[in-house]
Amino acid sequence: MSVSNIIKPGPLLEKVNYPEDLRKLPLGELQQLCFELRDYIIDVVSVYGGHFGASLGVVELTVALHYVFNTPDDKLVWDVGHQAYGHKIITGRRDLFHTNRRYGGISGFPKIKESPYDHFGVGHSSTSISAALGMAIASKLKGEEHRHHIAVIGDGALTGGLAFEGMNNAGASDANLLIVLNDNCMSIDPNVGALKEYLTDIATSSTYNKLKDEVWKMLGVLNKLGIHAQELASKIEHTFKSFLLKHSNFFESLNLRYFGPVDGHDVEHLVHVLEDLKKIPGPKLLHCVTVKGKGYAPAEKEQTIWHAPGTFDKLTGKIHKKPAEKPQPPNYQEVFGHTIVELARMNPKVVGITPAMPSGSSLNIMMREIPERAFDVGICEQHAVTFSAGLATQGFIPFCNIYSTFMQRAYDQVIHDVCIQELPVIFCLDRAGMVGADGATHQGTYDLAYFRCLPNLVVSAPMNEQELRNLMYTAMLDAEEYGKRAFSIRYPRGQGVMPEWRTPLERIPIGKGRMIRAGEELAILTIGHVGNLAVKAYTDLLSEGYNPAHYDMRFVKPLDEELLHEIFQKFDNILTIEDGCLMGGFGSAVLEFMADHGYHARVYRLGVPDKVVEHGTQEEQYRECGYDVDSIRMKIKEILGERSTEPVLDEKKLQGKFGR
Amino acid sequence: MSVSNIIKPGPLLEKVNYPEDLRKLPLGELQQLCFELRDYIIDVVSVYGGHFGASLGVVELTVALHYVFNTPDDKLVWDVGHQAYGHKIITGRRDLFHTNRRYGGISGFPKIKESPYDHFGVGHSSTSISAALGMAIASKLKGEEHRHHIAVIGDGALTGGLAFEGMNNAGASDANLLIVLNDNCMSIDPNVGALKEYLTDIATSSTYNKLKDEVWKMLGVLNKLGIHAQELASKIEHTFKSFLLKHSNFFESLNLRYFGPVDGHDVEHLVHVLEDLKKIPGPKLLHCVTVKGKGYAPAEKEQTIWHAPGTFDKLTGKIHKKPAEKPQPPNYQEVFGHTIVELARMNPKVVGITPAMPSGSSLNIMMREIPERAFDVGICEQHAVTFSAGLATQGFIPFCNIYSTFMQRAYDQVIHDVCIQELPVIFCLDRAGMVGADGATHQGTYDLAYFRCLPNLVVSAPMNEQELRNLMYTAMLDAEEYGKRAFSIRYPRGQGVMPEWRTPLERIPIGKGRMIRAGEELAILTIGHVGNLAVKAYTDLLSEGYNPAHYDMRFVKPLDEELLHEIFQKFDNILTIEDGCLMGGFGSAVLEFMADHGYHARVYRLGVPDKVVEHGTQEEQYRECGYDVDSIRMKIKEILGERSTEPVLDEKKLQGKFGR
Repeated sequence: MSVSNIIKPGPLLEKVNYPEDLRKLPLGELQQLCFELRDYIIDVVSVYGGHFGASLGVVELTVALHYVFNTPDDKLVWDVGHQAYGHKIITGRRDLFHTNRRYGGISGFPKIKESPYDHFGVGHSSTSISAALGMAIASKLKGEEHRHHIAVIGDGALTGGLAFEGMNNAGASDANLLIVLNDNCMSIDPNVGALKEYLTDIATSSTYNKLKDEVWKMLGVLNKLGIHAQELASKIEHTFKSFLLKHSNFFESLNLRYFGPVDGHDVEHLVHVLEDLKKIPGPKLLHCVTVKGKGYAPAEKEQTIWHAPGTFDKLTGKIHKKPAEKPQPPNYQEVFGHTIVELARMNPKVVGITPAMPSGSSLNIMMREIPERAFDVGICEQHAVTFSAGLATQGFIPFCNIYSTFMQRAYDQVIHDVCIQELPVIFCLDRAGMVGADGATHQGTYDLAYFRCLPNLVVSAPMNEQELRNLMYTAMLDAEEYGKRAFSIRYPRGQGVMPEWRTPLERIPIGKGRMIRAGEELAILTIGHVGNLAVKAYTDLLSEGYNPAHYDMRFVKPLDEELLHEIFQKFDNILTIEDGCLMGGFGSAVLEFMADHGYHARVYRLGVPDKVVEHGTQEEQYRECGYDVDSIRMKIKEILGERSTEPVLDEKKLQGKFGR
Repeated sequence: MSVSNIIKPGPLLEKVNYPEDLRKLPLGELQQLCFELRDYIIDVVSVYGGHFGASLGVVELTVALHYVFNTPDDKLVWDVGHQAYGHKIITGRRDLFHTNRRYGGISGFPKIKESPYDHFGVGHSSTSISAALGMAIASKLKGEEHRHHIAVIGDGALTGGLAFEGMNNAGASDANLLIVLNDNCMSIDPNVGALKEYLTDIATSSTYNKLKDEVWKMLGVLNKLGIHAQELASKIEHTFKSFLLKHSNFFESLNLRYFGPVDGHDVEHLVHVLEDLKKIPGPKLLHCVTVKGKGYAPAEKEQTIWHAPGTFDKLTGKIHKKPAEKPQPPNYQEVFGHTIVELARMNPKVVGITPAMPSGSSLNIMMREIPERAFDVGICEQHAVTFSAGLATQGFIPFCNIYSTFMQRAYDQVIHDVCIQELPVIFCLDRAGMVGADGATHQGTYDLAYFRCLPNLVVSAPMNEQELRNLMYTAMLDAEEYGKRAFSIRYPRGQGVMPEWRTPLERIPIGKGRMIRAGEELAILTIGHVGNLAVKAYTDLLSEGYNPAHYDMRFVKPLDEELLHEIFQKFDNILTIEDGCLMGGFGSAVLEFMADHGYHARVYRLGVPDKVVEHGTQEEQYRECGYDVDSIRMKIKEILGERSTEPVLDEKKLQGKFGR
């Protein structure tokens, strides 16, 4: 089914397949094109889902940028990239757009491999200025000074330290770089922080423009008083002007020439402004004020809900929800959100921290219920961790909730500010493992490997909702009583397996796994939610006479060595399964145990191989990596099949303890 | 030998063991105390070595802060911490100070475990604001509003994005937080970036104060003109004042009340200013201008050299250098520095990037020789990597040189901006492995584990200078010809092994190891420089009849599978050695190979165990971790001894291919 069969673009948009086509239009037609482009995005997303509000907010900006600049020779970098749907549609991908975020389809984010118009792959925030500065310096080195380089960054992404680093370097360069600040006061949730207040302040002109007005008024008064204090007036004017240019402004402090604020929805004005800016060399910033969800009333009103609403009825604005036939298991996110409130009510030292993901992580529940102990710090994972460390030094028990993929950005803070100092910060790693439609940039598949090598850090993963609750409870008690190590708990995006998940909280012995099923000849060792896939896989096989054992290890670190000794003494075949990278991950930890204790079992490992896994459903991604239910089932048969055709030598069991 | 025997503190300093003692002194004696404290630092460092210039620059600030604030109840966080020698001396550690940075001695940085006056452990830059904000919020939550929280941060550390994230959050809070900006225009090398220019600008008052002057002058002129334009004047004054307070300043934009600049070497004035600031609630910033190396003329003059000069003659200012009896091997750093210039001369696409470590990394050689292609971006590892990625998209070949420990801070950028995009950025990981005196915060021991799990990334380590040169050359050619993967090359701090290191450049097949020594019954597999320790260890044993083989694997990823098949087919005992963490590291990769191919050798692994390794010499640290020459020698004897007392079963070799 091609989208062109069901969703027709408007007559102007139909002609605009590439920016070259766009640039042939007269200025007067751009507004109509924006209307059609916006309508097309609404049409497609309402049927196929995806990010929504961000792209609606930059329709005019998208059209104006491609109209004025000579893309793809001029380089355009979208920060984060979930606002780039309009960009994709007018850069040759309209007919593929309905495959957005689907397995084998186009990515939800700009991506170098996908189009020559995507100059930098994005997904995580705050990278655009540094990347575009690199491109601008490259053009200088090549002597291709005519080229323009544009970074479009939201006010939310601007709170990430990397964006500041980029501006600090851009301002010290003479690079031909335009930063377009897309100021809509939002991340996914409302933006926070001092800079946001400042931007609002200058955007609403309450002081900045008032001062300018005052000066002109003052000069007028002097004239009215009949004072021909021309020298004085010109001196004042000059002083003010140079001051306003050099010092009146956050961005000017960083030596970025500041322009704006301008209305980001007036496409013709934007074109004029961008044409002017094209002529100004060096690093500069255009402050555009936009509305997230612009042009679709429900989305303008409820911006967080309409960030990525799923499919919906375009006319009524009603978001589709699948009717549930029976009670459904909750999302792990909800379990986290409710459980931290329970814990915080139990223990006044518990605090919650999220870097700009209150609704995504469900910390918004605590922010509503116990606002004084729940902190949305904005998009700044590094700060989130070091701030948590600071709280921990004073006896608090911070639950710092960060998506696995974003925890990569706070890796040094985890090592340097938390682990080395033995501070009891609890990391809840949301969206660990395969993340589905967000794809390659957002996969949470490295954390077991990159956390496992750190000292003073417990690394755990719950197999279900009850385990998540118990691990959170255990981590809190460990922080309270032992207080000398950090604790990480990873869980995936989406649904668990227990409709009745509000179980009583129970403490888990740290570093202890549990047997899910006794069995023979093959021990399946799983970590986290993926254990449920294993259960499904072998349950189907029991009737065929297969009889594997299954252990939910719960902890990658410390490993349950007592249990592993039992397992390695009993089993010659071991299968590890994890929703994470094979290199250095959970299976690798089991191998280290085996080698260090001189066992010689045959260990098979399922997990993410050494490659980039693109978007799709989580199920499709598991399949691609060979650990969906079917693949696990096949692997069990393959292992036990192999065993039956090639008998184990009796000496092997003796050797199990060789060299100890 | 106690330092008190040889280095006497002055009479005032002798009485000041703790801040309580300091606070009993009359204000008029502080200047003398500063003189004695400075002199004591010079005395001790000249004899024992250590960081130097930074601590001299904050002597007055240190004394004033402890005089005014009620430490340790008030919380004082030093950013980076190499400026905290004065702080250590007057907080109970004067008599231990000569053990600074030595094995078993006090740390060169503040450290929670070391003293109740060290409120946060530091080493890496830019953490102080976030940490102190966490403490300030903790005090609020506890209802202990009287407490003050102070972060002292240099203008160099301010360029790190984390510092900006901290300010952005602090400014949006009502936390009782004072940020003291220690502005000396330096990192280790001169500071760079737009903000530095801005700070210099306001510190030298060229515009900021001029504007204030202009306003007052203007008002005076109006009066002189006989105009009693009082209403007008007061309006202007009011407008200006509120504007100056609200908007004239980078920090005010972030809602931090800005005070200064003040002379950071006038201790009495500092005390007055800090007393005033104590009374002002909420987040605020004091801009102190200081001179790095203040009070020791050679250090004021050559600030980079005197950052950490080693021992020196106090009177002549001559830095001690060990006379070399014969030609010495160069530092790996020098080899990098000269080789990148060679490569850049050969290939115009080669560019070099360092985040604030031009002299430490030796990129300063290229900055001198080919300045247009060598970039010091300041303390901002994240930007360094994403900027490199931007350059790579345009066909350049960036050599991005970052210390292993600091690469932790750019981990997400390596994943998200480089590896996922298959961009050919070359990472030179300096100071990988044990780093010696800088200790726990700076250990470069995690990189093999955290890099090994990433796709599209070659992970390599040279065993000597020639190999470093060849790997750099190989990486350049790979970027040029294949261009679809990143390449990391790690090497340690300090000397290599080849006095004649300027060898012709030769290309190395990627993923190929090399045999250093043929042998029997034990295969020693090493990665990187630590291979030389292995050579020493087994060379000593040859006369005793031991006959191990030795392979320098060169690549952790891709592993040389062909060679490993040979090795696992031939050897029952394998010993891996790495200057990095055992969990998930090189040895772990070898275990994965073994498991995936169904081999069953006994694999022993030497490397860094799961703990924090403190400061000392590299040799001491190797010994503590069990892979110095002696420990390796003992391990070889232990393995081969074990073999001789417990004969290998013949079946074992058969099982070497079990299950393949």
